[in-house]
Amino acid sequence: MRLAKPLAPGSTIGIFGGGQLGRMLALAAGQLGFKCHIFAPEEDSPAFQVSAAHTVAGYHDFAALETFAKKVDVVTYEFENVPSDTAAFLESQALLAPSSAALRTAQDRIDEKIFIAGLGIPVAPFAAVNSEADLHNAIARIGRPAVLKTRRFGYDGKGQTKIAADTSTGVAWAEIGKAPAILEGFISFNKEISVIAARGWGGVIAVYDVPENHHENHILKTSTVPAGISRATAEEAREVARTIIAALDYVGVMGIEMFVSGTKLIVNEFAPRVHNSGHWTQDACVVSQFEQHIRAICGWPLGSTERHSNVVMHNILGGESARWAEYGASARTGVHFYGKAEARRGRKMGHINVLTPRQG
Amino acid sequence: MRLAKPLAPGSTIGIFGGGQLGRMLALAAGQLGFKCHIFAPEEDSPAFQVSAAHTVAGYHDFAALETFAKKVDVVTYEFENVPSDTAAFLESQALLAPSSAALRTAQDRIDEKIFIAGLGIPVAPFAAVNSEADLHNAIARIGRPAVLKTRRFGYDGKGQTKIAADTSTGVAWAEIGKAPAILEGFISFNKEISVIAARGWGGVIAVYDVPENHHENHILKTSTVPAGISRATAEEAREVARTIIAALDYVGVMGIEMFVSGTKLIVNEFAPRVHNSGHWTQDACVVSQFEQHIRAICGWPLGSTERHSNVVMHNILGGESARWAEYGASARTGVHFYGKAEARRGRKMGHINVLTPRQG
Repeated sequence: MRLAKPLAPGSTIGIFGGGQLGRMLALAAGQLGFKCHIFAPEEDSPAFQVSAAHTVAGYHDFAALETFAKKVDVVTYEFENVPSDTAAFLESQALLAPSSAALRTAQDRIDEKIFIAGLGIPVAPFAAVNSEADLHNAIARIGRPAVLKTRRFGYDGKGQTKIAADTSTGVAWAEIGKAPAILEGFISFNKEISVIAARGWGGVIAVYDVPENHHENHILKTSTVPAGISRATAEEAREVARTIIAALDYVGVMGIEMFVSGTKLIVNEFAPRVHNSGHWTQDACVVSQFEQHIRAICGWPLGSTERHSNVVMHNILGGESARWAEYGASARTGVHFYGKAEARRGRKMGHINVLTPRQG
Repeated sequence: MRLAKPLAPGSTIGIFGGGQLGRMLALAAGQLGFKCHIFAPEEDSPAFQVSAAHTVAGYHDFAALETFAKKVDVVTYEFENVPSDTAAFLESQALLAPSSAALRTAQDRIDEKIFIAGLGIPVAPFAAVNSEADLHNAIARIGRPAVLKTRRFGYDGKGQTKIAADTSTGVAWAEIGKAPAILEGFISFNKEISVIAARGWGGVIAVYDVPENHHENHILKTSTVPAGISRATAEEAREVARTIIAALDYVGVMGIEMFVSGTKLIVNEFAPRVHNSGHWTQDACVVSQFEQHIRAICGWPLGSTERHSNVVMHNILGGESARWAEYGASARTGVHFYGKAEARRGRKMGHINVLTPRQG
């Protein structure tokens, strides 16, 4: 289903998933005068706090899904692990953006790799792994070190294990639960970057400046803009993002992770949603990635991606959230907390955007 | 009552009043990880849309007020016409900021003028008017033209009438409903400006840059920053604001309206709340007036008032709201809508902040 006409302020946006991304989408929607309805299974979902309407129900509660779909003018989601039958059902009942087809491609690491490689864009060497024997053969072909990942439902380093020089295939195969998997060749990279791109129903594309990302324990720790890469590499990365988002006939904001290896760009993966490495846009741009996503799915003109400041985004993880007063006292610092009660180790509790005057 | 210790993210802020200012306060509170509970008498209050919790009850429903006060960690308000007995009751049940004393001074145009004049700050010539005879005498003393205003409950030009050369005192007195009033001498001014100032529980003050304001039909139409005034006049205006906010032992954000007459500053009035002429801070500063108010009342460090861009704020009034797609298509433009269904003539439906690179 396509959008018949742009949604005016006062329309209702259905958000599937109730975490911090849903919360920040709802806040951006609120700024533009939209109402939101959040659908999530957890009673204490952070996004519920910033919206008048929510539904607590499981992702397979089709009666609740049907009622939800009737109440909203468009449905979007804040996480890529929406079950595919759920996405298909929502799409049959309401306008869904991004589409279930885009979601499906992003959900399966092998489909994703084949799709990207099919566009002529470099990816890491990979092989499908459905058994320990497959794994053995794949290692023989791709070499060590390598990374074994479940095909589906991985995030923040979950569902993956490294194949080092001495890793036993049996242990690795057990480690990821003997689930359908992908073996990816290890990329020796100089930098990790990402591109936040948006595309509207009419095909217009807007791409933000490129952040350079640093991970700790597989969790994003900082995003720095501008990235320490050449202007040519940055423009190439943005062009790769444009190619992917257009080929998917995508509507909304997408985050595309890439490695820079020498002068070569290799796409790691894309997420069919707003992305942690795009949080810096909240304080360094007039239109944040969250507002951009709302604009895209509602058929609004996309906003300018112009950046008025240089910026470093720091994730606030686990117990670091106790330092809120310190963050609040920092100059030129945008403070964002997600309303999560329990500061579990490694849990994303908030982030700060530290600005400096723009240079270059 | 004073704040015992700063309120951590996750605390609940009670907001009294459900209009656009309450809505934008709630959105700012949500960014910092706070929960909100909105109290307003109208079922379809714009602020309800962006908060999980609200109470629909009258401002004199003391049972509802008591329940509300118990659920929140601090209470603030978005409008200056909170009945004084309601404010006093809330203050007895919860932490209220700004205080009922500050509210009381702001609610009565004569108390306000006496308070400001008592600080050695110029105000327009004024006289109390409680009868047509009073009005006659006041005009004899102050001269024509002048403005007759009700002492209490006026806003956006409501509750006031001009005394021109030929205005009959009887007609003017009837015009404002024969309510207790103030006659103010007409100020011949070059510009209207305002100052948005914030003060925390500990007495720290933060003041934003000075906007120049243009009104149409007594309703704010634009605020432009920087104002077309000298650096010395701007600094003097900020100092006047510091003097007033400190003298009131005020906690929160306040808007102080002033006239610039030649090189002289004359204070018109102050509003004990976030102010329409401070909306530009949402897109031209890292910390908006709304976040600043939340920081102040919650005992957080005040944020920097630094401005990274020049900006013009335009109010979107009545039927102009139909032009949302045009606003959305404008570059470097922050778009804000309030979720109001009915675009009545002159009603504040939203605003835009149009940025240009900072110069000076």
